[in-house]
Amino acid sequence: MAAIKVHGSPFSTATARVLATLYEKEVEFEFVPVDMRAGDHKNESFLSFNPFGQVPGFEHGDLKLFESRAITKYVANEYAEKGTELVFGDSKKKAIIGVWMEVEAHQFDPVATKLTWELAAKPAFSMGATDKAVVEENEAKLAKLLDVYECRLAESKYLGCESFTLVDLHHLPGIHYLMGTEIKKLFDSRPHVSAWIADITSRPAWSKVLAMQKQK
Amino acid sequence: MAAIKVHGSPFSTATARVLATLYEKEVEFEFVPVDMRAGDHKNESFLSFNPFGQVPGFEHGDLKLFESRAITKYVANEYAEKGTELVFGDSKKKAIIGVWMEVEAHQFDPVATKLTWELAAKPAFSMGATDKAVVEENEAKLAKLLDVYECRLAESKYLGCESFTLVDLHHLPGIHYLMGTEIKKLFDSRPHVSAWIADITSRPAWSKVLAMQKQK
Repeated sequence: MAAIKVHGSPFSTATARVLATLYEKEVEFEFVPVDMRAGDHKNESFLSFNPFGQVPGFEHGDLKLFESRAITKYVANEYAEKGTELVFGDSKKKAIIGVWMEVEAHQFDPVATKLTWELAAKPAFSMGATDKAVVEENEAKLAKLLDVYECRLAESKYLGCESFTLVDLHHLPGIHYLMGTEIKKLFDSRPHVSAWIADITSRPAWSKVLAMQKQK
Repeated sequence: MAAIKVHGSPFSTATARVLATLYEKEVEFEFVPVDMRAGDHKNESFLSFNPFGQVPGFEHGDLKLFESRAITKYVANEYAEKGTELVFGDSKKKAIIGVWMEVEAHQFDPVATKLTWELAAKPAFSMGATDKAVVEENEAKLAKLLDVYECRLAESKYLGCESFTLVDLHHLPGIHYLMGTEIKKLFDSRPHVSAWIADITSRPAWSKVLAMQKQK
């Protein structure tokens, strides 16, 4: 029995973030599917795990965690010696990686989530008409954000530093969904952003997460 | 000349978070006021510092940072030996603190920001009528969140662990503004939350931040 268990759905961006980290670190784990369409993440058993009823839940022996970015940081630090190096000890480098980690969480993720909801989830699950005003507002925000990314990626190969880190990885699930929508044009029109996306989405660890989505 | 400079406004919650951390760590710094009402955070000189034009900006020698939570983590780690211990090395404890740090950033802060805007900023600066629907929606979200906090604080003295950490500190600026509004009742009606707030808002480091607001 694997010491690590991940409870979630590979289609959830937060779960996918954790799965990608575990594959990058080459750490064995057991995946426990949570049927979100059946509302299993709001059941009492899952709520005792995560009081907010959000996937993923994470177990490592008697340690139980929720919040995907807290889990990825734990895995990256706990298995520092295994697989891809995703965090760095040097305090200044760590601080700069920390800045871009916050940018993903506070600026990229809320916008990506709203656009994915309107342009991918609603049409796929017949959940009502796309709200054009929400799309317009968030598309403008994303365009501004990607202008900053374009400048950053012109001077640094990856967002956090010269090598792939958790910062880039945290973007993967959101980018994956947006690349399947009209929003793709915002990424494609910026050469450094576009090269960065081609690079990070082609990582073997990420392909394994996508393969899990296909198995469902 | 102090090696650390903080560019911002003590009224900005993000700046106040950084100031409280520096006072807790007893680290000397120079405060450089940014006149946000005059739009100085959108000037070219500040944008070269932080491409998103948001305070605070932070300098430590040649290291320049933005995003308040990245700055507080840097200060807490860089000055681990000075002042209050705000982060912990043990990986499991650190992971649990990390979970609650994410809860503050993704669940408390967006709700607190919207409520503060509607109930404190708009009336104070005559910026239009309070949107009652926004207040109602976010008040309900905050009430649910505080129910989880009440359970957590019944089993742990502070949100992250048994001692005061960055998790609690990150809440201070948001709590301060909300305690001056009708939202205070949501905190007061939950005994563990109420005791926690009385405790963390009475810290000398936080009083120093409030004193900076009064000087302005």
